[in-house]
Amino acid sequence: MKNTLLNQQRLVDIAKRNGIDAFVATSPENVTYASGYWALSQWIRRGPQVHVLLPVQNLEASRIIAPTSLLDQFVDQEDVWVRNVSRYGFFHVDRGEDQLGRSDSRLLDLFGQPDEKEAISALVKALQAEGLDKATLAIDELGLMPGHWERLQQQLPDAKLVPAMKLFREIRAVKTSQEIERLRRIATITEQSVDAALQLARPGITELEMARVFHATTVEGDATPVLGCLGFGSRSAMPNVYPSEAELRMGDVIRFDAGGRYRHYRADLARIAVLGEPSKKIRAYHKALHNGVLAAFEAIRPGVQASKVYEVAMDATRRSGIPHYSRSHVGHGIGLDGYDMPDLIPSNDQIIEEGMVMCVETPYYEFGWCGLQVENTVVVRKDGVELLHEEDGDLKVLA
Amino acid sequence: MKNTLLNQQRLVDIAKRNGIDAFVATSPENVTYASGYWALSQWIRRGPQVHVLLPVQNLEASRIIAPTSLLDQFVDQEDVWVRNVSRYGFFHVDRGEDQLGRSDSRLLDLFGQPDEKEAISALVKALQAEGLDKATLAIDELGLMPGHWERLQQQLPDAKLVPAMKLFREIRAVKTSQEIERLRRIATITEQSVDAALQLARPGITELEMARVFHATTVEGDATPVLGCLGFGSRSAMPNVYPSEAELRMGDVIRFDAGGRYRHYRADLARIAVLGEPSKKIRAYHKALHNGVLAAFEAIRPGVQASKVYEVAMDATRRSGIPHYSRSHVGHGIGLDGYDMPDLIPSNDQIIEEGMVMCVETPYYEFGWCGLQVENTVVVRKDGVELLHEEDGDLKVLA
Repeated sequence: MKNTLLNQQRLVDIAKRNGIDAFVATSPENVTYASGYWALSQWIRRGPQVHVLLPVQNLEASRIIAPTSLLDQFVDQEDVWVRNVSRYGFFHVDRGEDQLGRSDSRLLDLFGQPDEKEAISALVKALQAEGLDKATLAIDELGLMPGHWERLQQQLPDAKLVPAMKLFREIRAVKTSQEIERLRRIATITEQSVDAALQLARPGITELEMARVFHATTVEGDATPVLGCLGFGSRSAMPNVYPSEAELRMGDVIRFDAGGRYRHYRADLARIAVLGEPSKKIRAYHKALHNGVLAAFEAIRPGVQASKVYEVAMDATRRSGIPHYSRSHVGHGIGLDGYDMPDLIPSNDQIIEEGMVMCVETPYYEFGWCGLQVENTVVVRKDGVELLHEEDGDLKVLA
Repeated sequence: MKNTLLNQQRLVDIAKRNGIDAFVATSPENVTYASGYWALSQWIRRGPQVHVLLPVQNLEASRIIAPTSLLDQFVDQEDVWVRNVSRYGFFHVDRGEDQLGRSDSRLLDLFGQPDEKEAISALVKALQAEGLDKATLAIDELGLMPGHWERLQQQLPDAKLVPAMKLFREIRAVKTSQEIERLRRIATITEQSVDAALQLARPGITELEMARVFHATTVEGDATPVLGCLGFGSRSAMPNVYPSEAELRMGDVIRFDAGGRYRHYRADLARIAVLGEPSKKIRAYHKALHNGVLAAFEAIRPGVQASKVYEVAMDATRRSGIPHYSRSHVGHGIGLDGYDMPDLIPSNDQIIEEGMVMCVETPYYEFGWCGLQVENTVVVRKDGVELLHEEDGDLKVLA
């Protein structure tokens, strides 16, 4: 149970501070985070219920509750550290006459466990078995179906249920080394995918043609496309610009705000390029935005308030050339979710800690002109930040 | 308002049958279905609230409720047929000095609309403005956050709220021509991606190497990877087998159960190949499974019960060579969701209608041996089925 995605110490600390006896993960991000288990159908649809019970005093007794049809993933995924599983629902498989391999045997054993029929009853039973039916239970409300919370409370009348969505976000805010390595990998893949796509830049190429190469490069790295905002010229001013048949012209800005998923972890990077010589205004504004992010990097270290980083970035951007610069946030955490804690906003007094991973960004959207954006990903170390990719988002001038 | 994803006539019919005055879509699938609007952040995270209000008596007055940060997608997406939008939340953009294009002007106009602050209050206001505050409202419960339903009822004490998730599934079950063309495209892309991947087949190639080519081909077709189950030999018996470093050997089964998303619509196809000469048992069992699907094709036509299709497929498979064949379903609808109606299960008395699109499948998972599977996608026409791709899932023997 050493090297997990789950930050076990932080979970225990936060549980103590909030008087929590057990956590129950229900949303895809929290299920994978809590157990290492990636339950396919939960990630591609809303509805399928997979839960992870984490008894704070005895994490070794943690338990996954999953549909019988997903047990093969429990056995096949090396990342899963939770050893106990309850299954529910019918799923038929056949048994050949040949000798079974170790994982097939394991899987057939699990099929032999009793069918708990349904996720909530299975969860109630598991909580009772751990003596947690009168405990304070932090239930991740994000993945439950309507009515589930009420059923849980009805079947556990002596338990105190509290919502866990925010607590899980708090736990997830400080990354373990396994998480950081995945975040580094996907940030790097994304950066390389942008560069591969930019090699196509010439007058007449379309956003869609460039997007294809971006995503194909991501896929070559065993990552999955998620976010693919890409726009040329005045279209780049749309915050969520999606690739179209629009053609690149000399002097156009190319704005990427993009990133995929590698082993479930997200990237979110921005890169700006110009085909040919950038105008003075593009150079000046981009430099200001870049200075904003670099100033934030200087400010970020353990013990600093998130709001302070916001102030520093805004101030530097305004002083460096965009005096009217206005923006509600200059970044956010990233992990299994694209928006982890902390939010780099003026009202956030959260303290930055070692091991947090953040996207720091200064986007600028000017309708009728273009969009510019610097966005990089850093991990917070003892003395400051470490970039999780090669480049720091300088303007790319394409010959 | 002619050519939409939304099956307007069916919505009106189902509303009448159930006494519904208006529908409210909240989950990503239903928001896109109801309006054509694809709201990025809602699709990649849980939490962001986008709603679509559809007043049954006056669909022209339909309204999208969206965060200000996503308005650009409302303006830029040609598929959106809903003309009214309410925005909520702060998002800053700048205005250049140059003349604005038509879509930029439109977008700035929308930014000039009042900020409704928050999704549920915006929805309440929109319902009141349409005189629907005492109406029967079918609310898609799947996309709401915990507590939203209760707040809605509190702020609309005279309205009757009923859950809409199942009603939306019922509406979505019969596809419009636009939907069928997207489903045809992604089924075809998936079939081509499998074939491209199978060209790598030789002893020693890994599942991961093959998966990379599968996904890269999907991406080249402007589609997005979603489902990528792929396993060799005995691993192919795992229902959700995910690509690993396992190497292909002569005589191995290669099982694909896979499909991506094209313009938000899903594919889900299975293809079986064998490297070298298949064993007698593989040939015989695959033929039985194939017969099961072909028999289902013969049985499917408007007016037939879903349960009848199940019986026919099971019976044909058992009679053709797998007498012990056992299976809970032999297929399901497909559309924006991978599991649309109808479910081809023994207990389903739903009547098959023209325009339904279904994946018909007979998978067989034998631990210690391999997994075999036939799965094809068809649209129901007046006289029977039309395949949405080239091949019908015959066994592929790779030299």
